[in-house]
Amino acid sequence: MSDQPIIRFATKDDVSSILFLIKELAIFENALDSVETTEQSLLDTLSFPNTPDAVSLSDFSPGFARTFLLIVPNSNVTDVPKAHDGSVAGMALFFTNYSTWRGAPGVYLEDLYVRQQFRRKGHARLLLGALAKETIRLGGKRLEWSCLNWNVNALKFYESIGAVKQSEWIGLRTDGEALESSFLCCTRTVKDQSGSTTNLHSSRGSTKPPPTFEYDGQRYLGCLQRIISGFQLARSCLAVYSQIWTLKNSVSGFRLL
Amino acid sequence: MSDQPIIRFATKDDVSSILFLIKELAIFENALDSVETTEQSLLDTLSFPNTPDAVSLSDFSPGFARTFLLIVPNSNVTDVPKAHDGSVAGMALFFTNYSTWRGAPGVYLEDLYVRQQFRRKGHARLLLGALAKETIRLGGKRLEWSCLNWNVNALKFYESIGAVKQSEWIGLRTDGEALESSFLCCTRTVKDQSGSTTNLHSSRGSTKPPPTFEYDGQRYLGCLQRIISGFQLARSCLAVYSQIWTLKNSVSGFRLL
Repeated sequence: MSDQPIIRFATKDDVSSILFLIKELAIFENALDSVETTEQSLLDTLSFPNTPDAVSLSDFSPGFARTFLLIVPNSNVTDVPKAHDGSVAGMALFFTNYSTWRGAPGVYLEDLYVRQQFRRKGHARLLLGALAKETIRLGGKRLEWSCLNWNVNALKFYESIGAVKQSEWIGLRTDGEALESSFLCCTRTVKDQSGSTTNLHSSRGSTKPPPTFEYDGQRYLGCLQRIISGFQLARSCLAVYSQIWTLKNSVSGFRLL
Repeated sequence: MSDQPIIRFATKDDVSSILFLIKELAIFENALDSVETTEQSLLDTLSFPNTPDAVSLSDFSPGFARTFLLIVPNSNVTDVPKAHDGSVAGMALFFTNYSTWRGAPGVYLEDLYVRQQFRRKGHARLLLGALAKETIRLGGKRLEWSCLNWNVNALKFYESIGAVKQSEWIGLRTDGEALESSFLCCTRTVKDQSGSTTNLHSSRGSTKPPPTFEYDGQRYLGCLQRIISGFQLARSCLAVYSQIWTLKNSVSGFRLL
């Protein structure tokens, strides 16, 4: 058997493997408690291929995201998760997004994960390559994802493969009660709202950058206070020195200069 | 006629209005040159309702994003764009996304736009309310969007309606040549790659935060330099003062104390 890794779309038979990988990733992230996902919720919400050779979107069941599984056919790793065609070494879970400037879809990578024992073999690159290929196949113009800003190694790797950081953008999220209450408040009070939507005509705002000179008031105030403290200290020293000088001068013929 | 604004899904008949709004937004953003979108590309890629009362996703044509149009039926505004039911005052263009921790879809708002002459009437809130409602209807758990980090007014408003900033996340994007070359390099060289995927097992990285104490070396170095400058100046003053003092002392009986 070949040990050449395979990338294929996850099927309904793979939901236990997907959930395993989601939870293993969450354990690494110290966030297992945040995972509400179940095999049933994955079955209900993910999109799976209707046939083994599914390619176009119409060959997939309705759903909100699809999953590439990375399979190592002849692996020495004996633990779960296993698929019919080998060990499940990783996944890339993704959905399509949209660019109004391109008038075209793109692909958003929600989770890229390679299991510990399969790392350092280029598998992450292989999954990204499959995503890039899928993006192009869809007529998409962009492959996008997010990374924590302190995950320096990942950011370095992503930039090395040509990814560009969108550092000027901040993501915003409403969920839970805020989501439901925003729905209620918005639909009830729309006629009463005024004046609070200034400059909200775009969630993107302007791409014209603000002046590059950034005045950080608090920072300079802090420095100023330190300078003043320095002067005050120096003045005090001067006063003390003057007193000593006066004292010295009064008792001896000592001169500084 | 009522001037109560209406929010409805854009149909194929509205693509010229959508393109108008995309371009007006791009003009505001000084980025009209970046808009490659055409009426045809919108027709080819957006999802439109098959019937006027379409609700569930199966009632829509295949596509990558949907658009809520904000219509003001009895507007005084005479300019384009007009729809059969009134003036097109704004839009919210969105697509579904996915959370692996929730095992559920969400809604991502790509563009929120209200035309200049229709602002300060709560229309942005109305559109956000419609999106929140749609999110809940889809069984979604999150409504998300992005905002430029210096668009302070928008950020303030978004936080006032319960949106939470995802400041620790950096968006990454590959497009154009980088997208195509990453595809090529990935599929060709997967067996040759090693060692460069360390800590890349998640595009999200760990949610465990880095230490909260932030030492900003450059900032404190700057302050220190200013303090030293302060002391140097004080020392110079002291030297001058000493010289004057010596001079005064030598020519008269003047004493400081």
